[in-house]
Amino acid sequence: MSRADKVRVAIVGCGEHAVRNLLPSIASIGTFALVAAADLDMERATLASNQYGAARAYADYQIMLDREHLDALVLCGPPDMHYKVASEAIARGLHVFVEKPPTWSTKELHHLAVNAKEHCVVTAVGHNFRYAEPYQVMNRIVSGEGTDQFGKLVNIDMVFLSTKPRRPLWGKDSVIRSFLLAMALHPVEIMISQFGLPISTTVNAHFHGGSDRQRVSSPAMESETMMLLMINVLFGDRRVATLVTGNCSDRFKIDIRFTSDSGKLLQLDDLWRLTYEGGGVSHVRGSGLPTKWSLNWTPSPLDSGHVRSGYAGELAAFATAVITGGRTHPSFAEEVAVYDVVDAIERDVAAQLMLVTPL
Amino acid sequence: MSRADKVRVAIVGCGEHAVRNLLPSIASIGTFALVAAADLDMERATLASNQYGAARAYADYQIMLDREHLDALVLCGPPDMHYKVASEAIARGLHVFVEKPPTWSTKELHHLAVNAKEHCVVTAVGHNFRYAEPYQVMNRIVSGEGTDQFGKLVNIDMVFLSTKPRRPLWGKDSVIRSFLLAMALHPVEIMISQFGLPISTTVNAHFHGGSDRQRVSSPAMESETMMLLMINVLFGDRRVATLVTGNCSDRFKIDIRFTSDSGKLLQLDDLWRLTYEGGGVSHVRGSGLPTKWSLNWTPSPLDSGHVRSGYAGELAAFATAVITGGRTHPSFAEEVAVYDVVDAIERDVAAQLMLVTPL
Amino acid sequence: MSRADKVRVAIVGCGEHAVRNLLPSIASIGTFALVAAADLDMERATLASNQYGAARAYADYQIMLDREHLDALVLCGPPDMHYKVASEAIARGLHVFVEKPPTWSTKELHHLAVNAKEHCVVTAVGHNFRYAEPYQVMNRIVSGEGTDQFGKLVNIDMVFLSTKPRRPLWGKDSVIRSFLLAMALHPVEIMISQFGLPISTTVNAHFHGGSDRQRVSSPAMESETMMLLMINVLFGDRRVATLVTGNCSDRFKIDIRFTSDSGKLLQLDDLWRLTYEGGGVSHVRGSGLPTKWSLNWTPSPLDSGHVRSGYAGELAAFATAVITGGRTHPSFAEEVAVYDVVDAIERDVAAQLMLVTPL
Amino acid sequence: MSRADKVRVAIVGCGEHAVRNLLPSIASIGTFALVAAADLDMERATLASNQYGAARAYADYQIMLDREHLDALVLCGPPDMHYKVASEAIARGLHVFVEKPPTWSTKELHHLAVNAKEHCVVTAVGHNFRYAEPYQVMNRIVSGEGTDQFGKLVNIDMVFLSTKPRRPLWGKDSVIRSFLLAMALHPVEIMISQFGLPISTTVNAHFHGGSDRQRVSSPAMESETMMLLMINVLFGDRRVATLVTGNCSDRFKIDIRFTSDSGKLLQLDDLWRLTYEGGGVSHVRGSGLPTKWSLNWTPSPLDSGHVRSGYAGELAAFATAVITGGRTHPSFAEEVAVYDVVDAIERDVAAQLMLVTPL
Repeated sequence: MSRADKVRVAIVGCGEHAVRNLLPSIASIGTFALVAAADLDMERATLASNQYGAARAYADYQIMLDREHLDALVLCGPPDMHYKVASEAIARGLHVFVEKPPTWSTKELHHLAVNAKEHCVVTAVGHNFRYAEPYQVMNRIVSGEGTDQFGKLVNIDMVFLSTKPRRPLWGKDSVIRSFLLAMALHPVEIMISQFGLPISTTVNAHFHGGSDRQRVSSPAMESETMMLLMINVLFGDRRVATLVTGNCSDRFKIDIRFTSDSGKLLQLDDLWRLTYEGGGVSHVRGSGLPTKWSLNWTPSPLDSGHVRSGYAGELAAFATAVITGGRTHPSFAEEVAVYDVVDAIERDVAAQLMLVTPL
Repeated sequence: MSRADKVRVAIVGCGEHAVRNLLPSIASIGTFALVAAADLDMERATLASNQYGAARAYADYQIMLDREHLDALVLCGPPDMHYKVASEAIARGLHVFVEKPPTWSTKELHHLAVNAKEHCVVTAVGHNFRYAEPYQVMNRIVSGEGTDQFGKLVNIDMVFLSTKPRRPLWGKDSVIRSFLLAMALHPVEIMISQFGLPISTTVNAHFHGGSDRQRVSSPAMESETMMLLMINVLFGDRRVATLVTGNCSDRFKIDIRFTSDSGKLLQLDDLWRLTYEGGGVSHVRGSGLPTKWSLNWTPSPLDSGHVRSGYAGELAAFATAVITGGRTHPSFAEEVAVYDVVDAIERDVAAQLMLVTPL
Repeated sequence: MSRADKVRVAIVGCGEHAVRNLLPSIASIGTFALVAAADLDMERATLASNQYGAARAYADYQIMLDREHLDALVLCGPPDMHYKVASEAIARGLHVFVEKPPTWSTKELHHLAVNAKEHCVVTAVGHNFRYAEPYQVMNRIVSGEGTDQFGKLVNIDMVFLSTKPRRPLWGKDSVIRSFLLAMALHPVEIMISQFGLPISTTVNAHFHGGSDRQRVSSPAMESETMMLLMINVLFGDRRVATLVTGNCSDRFKIDIRFTSDSGKLLQLDDLWRLTYEGGGVSHVRGSGLPTKWSLNWTPSPLDSGHVRSGYAGELAAFATAVITGGRTHPSFAEEVAVYDVVDAIERDVAAQLMLVTPL
Repeated sequence: MSRADKVRVAIVGCGEHAVRNLLPSIASIGTFALVAAADLDMERATLASNQYGAARAYADYQIMLDREHLDALVLCGPPDMHYKVASEAIARGLHVFVEKPPTWSTKELHHLAVNAKEHCVVTAVGHNFRYAEPYQVMNRIVSGEGTDQFGKLVNIDMVFLSTKPRRPLWGKDSVIRSFLLAMALHPVEIMISQFGLPISTTVNAHFHGGSDRQRVSSPAMESETMMLLMINVLFGDRRVATLVTGNCSDRFKIDIRFTSDSGKLLQLDDLWRLTYEGGGVSHVRGSGLPTKWSLNWTPSPLDSGHVRSGYAGELAAFATAVITGGRTHPSFAEEVAVYDVVDAIERDVAAQLMLVTPL
């Protein structure tokens, strides 16, 4: 592919995540040509440009948009920036990939989705989990690509635990919404990508650590709000997703379990070890040998780069959609459904938090 | 302990489970003196007596009850036998341990519980999972016995999958109730033992394999009924238990996961491997060393006998209760609460089964 | 099988191991009729008899041998007792199963083997590891029973670590030989059962904890001798077994790894979890799916009794050999080869211990 | 760090490994300034330059050396190229990092090492395993950095299995040496880095697949040579390393096990999961709780980039050595010791291969 045929892309926001994960992913994707990098901090923009071969760096993204002939924009910063820059980019007819969370409010996201449709641009939200290599394997098995039949996926159980955020992020006033947009967005997106639109959402929440009501209403918080949420989501055709998530853990922990209506299990621990219980009759057969073996797969010991984590995959899918005029997932429009569930969860959690007696 | 001080016990029902698990457990418990064994099949009764040192064997349990001076009875057969023999035993003032399921109907169980209270006898239902050594370790950590604080248990997630029963058991006409009493009784009992009485129970069921309606109504079934159930039980104080269970698997699979309100995880796989995520700051500390390690415990490589599986523990607890005049768990009265949940599940599953169009 | 056709067996030595593992195994084997139990401590003999259905108990084993019409004897005590009682039993034409270690010296064992051959009796040494269910599965795969070909076993690597013995056992004066007979006998027997007679044995030993030379020469030891041994054994056809063993661990740890000449791996961790790398092309195939999965097998979650640990298997094999006039493994004659390796190891370790400067 | 203070580096060889692992690692290291990229294939050189921000691309590395003001060179190609270019680079006073294998012959490597010393340049061979994050954690524990004492490392056991090479590489005529330099170099380097210079090396080899003698002597091979090698290396102070390695597997498999003289175990499976048996008394303590837990650590679920695999670490260490005038490991001089062991292994394997009867 000659440089002329590549997707001319620029990035806005050159913080740690961009430099460690998004920019090396872009550099590794042959269909992208990284043209420029912008950051309010010119030093960061310059550094990023030098490291990943962008010709120019900008402190002002609008100047960049004016000067460069871009096809697409990658946004990696706080949600208010995402909303503002994405709005302009769409208006200019640029395709937009935005790190999650794309916006703070569902209304803003909906607004972007409508505009994007109007301007016929490709949009994508950075849900790397969905593109993580072991999840892709899991997904292919569920989709019936193996010679062995998994059956119909009817239950998803997920544990998404993290150590943060325990205070509001991005200059906002709600730690609950901050947590949901920073962390819980991922598992909710996974549910919806597998099961479609939900019928109902139930939440049971536990809090600890101080006077919670104040924390939510006041941006100047004095202590941390920790929560553990148990979320149950019912989908059509009696399919159920359960999620245990929270910011109260002392570690980052992600487990995903899929169960089919024939009792087969696919379990993915820490986005690394995939276990398939019931995955076909094994070849280990013979007189007196047990027939029930579980199957395990892991990435290569030398797995390196950004394929396993999904950062390379999500951006490659975006590039392909731009080139082919196709779609990628989730688009801004699809993400609105994810936000709707997050809104429902937020209302429930906030209501339950109100019931906690201040110390 | 001299033989005179021991609990004089006899068994009714000398089938495979009794001979493989209960009788060797009784033999290994120093506080029991196994006096006699009864079975409709006299050969089985004799064999069991010879193998585990019972002085006499009987084909007619009533003759045994008349002739032997017993303190306690262990019952291991179909639920109708349990009900009948337990009724008589209680009336005679004998303490009774009964394998699960203790009865077919909740009404029968309630009746036994009332009688037992009247006659002041110790009763116990054989819930070995609760007494399984690794579960006991898990339970002690949850109960705060470790120096590290687990926090408050707020979520239990369980997978209980088996290959059977797919047809009604014990001469009854419902495969749903047969399955629930044979398999799902265990996880329901675990929930209740941890969380107390439930507030509400929700079930989503999936079936496959033929004309289901007929199967339930007709004892002479022509094909198998397979089901996968997703059960969500809400308990007081916003605690939640989720259970995925079914008879549709090609293997026996039991996983139990406990989550605390501080995001700590205790996971027990196959009643063997216990993993504790968040279990204290490890001693593995030093400059540059990661601090987040998970802890693993398993039984000894040479683990042998019936301690790990819980058969020894449940019977030892019964013997102790008989000797000390104390209680053991679950008693018949406590088991009624378990049956109430099973009844609720059964109603839901049967209703959903009715909606399945016959092929 | 009528009682008359069964193997009439008695046990000599009713200590903890006999009561917890051997007697329940005997009771569970239908081809055995347990006739009597002997122990110097009459109370232990009586208790064991009562628990496992032996008609009579003896404090004096010779009286038992005179009075009972026995087919076979099971010995479970210190090696000097084993030697003495086995000698008499063989002279009386009884078949003999003896717990390991069968004798203290190789000379004694050789003497028993010669006598046993003369009197045409079945002999067996209690190597339960070899009969442990997961090891049997491993062994069947290696033997080519599976439809998938493992290839030729060329490497065995074993870790056998324990916390004891750190002082001489059985009233003897060598902690090295005590450790080798108590613990290292098992892995050496496994090597020989797979590879036959060895060509050469190399040992590298590490010690810590005080004045080692005195410890070996003096039976009244003041402190513990701890050692870690790295043993390399070469067998014919360039096959190699390596063993890391010691009494210096804080836990009991047993791992066995088999490698074939085609690079397939069978790994058994803690006699529980069996992993097969390279075990056939999995059924999990499809476009884009990885093809290299490892296979895992574990015993049932409710595994109970003495099959997994091998105690039931070793005794059942002995009973079968007695009935059919066949052989079981290892016989006393076969065990001599195991002792020869232990002797070679002991000489090397003792020589290296001499080099340790007393503190 | 301003661009002027950075290590001005260029790469020679822009093949897949360079583009996927080395170049992104260089880009991620702030102390490097990537100046140019050279490849015989100008298109590859240009692509690499564009992706990772090098200002210029060259098809002729000598022109690059003449024109660019370089501090250091990274070489990634066949060993003959490494030797030739490294010789020139050293002569020009450039610091050199070379992918393994650095050369085909030990003599060449020795020559480079002597020259490097003369010209006072920093040299490094790309042994990424040693810099892999989980291995680093393992190494720190062994080095006594944890508060818990591991003891003295006395045994290393490694499994390094791969699917290739089964034919000679790099236009050479020996599949044995090709395999040893491509794969076995890693574990040998690990042994030596822990234990120093070896005393003796023993090899037992198994081959299968055709007329092996021809294969080695003839560069035009008709079929593949597969081998499994069992290598035993004795080091001073009675320390032992064992290695099972081969090109006959159907998968890439790397396991490393460290045992201390106090029976502690550190096991690293697939460069991902680290298990520490005996790692301190756990915090999980309380009445009735077991005290022996093993510890597990894995990288983060979202681990991404080239830190875990060690590519980033080895290059960062090289950059630091260049800046500080310090050393990095292994230098060319240190690598000579690794080659000496490889030579000894090669002689043994070749001799054993001669004994194989041609089919």
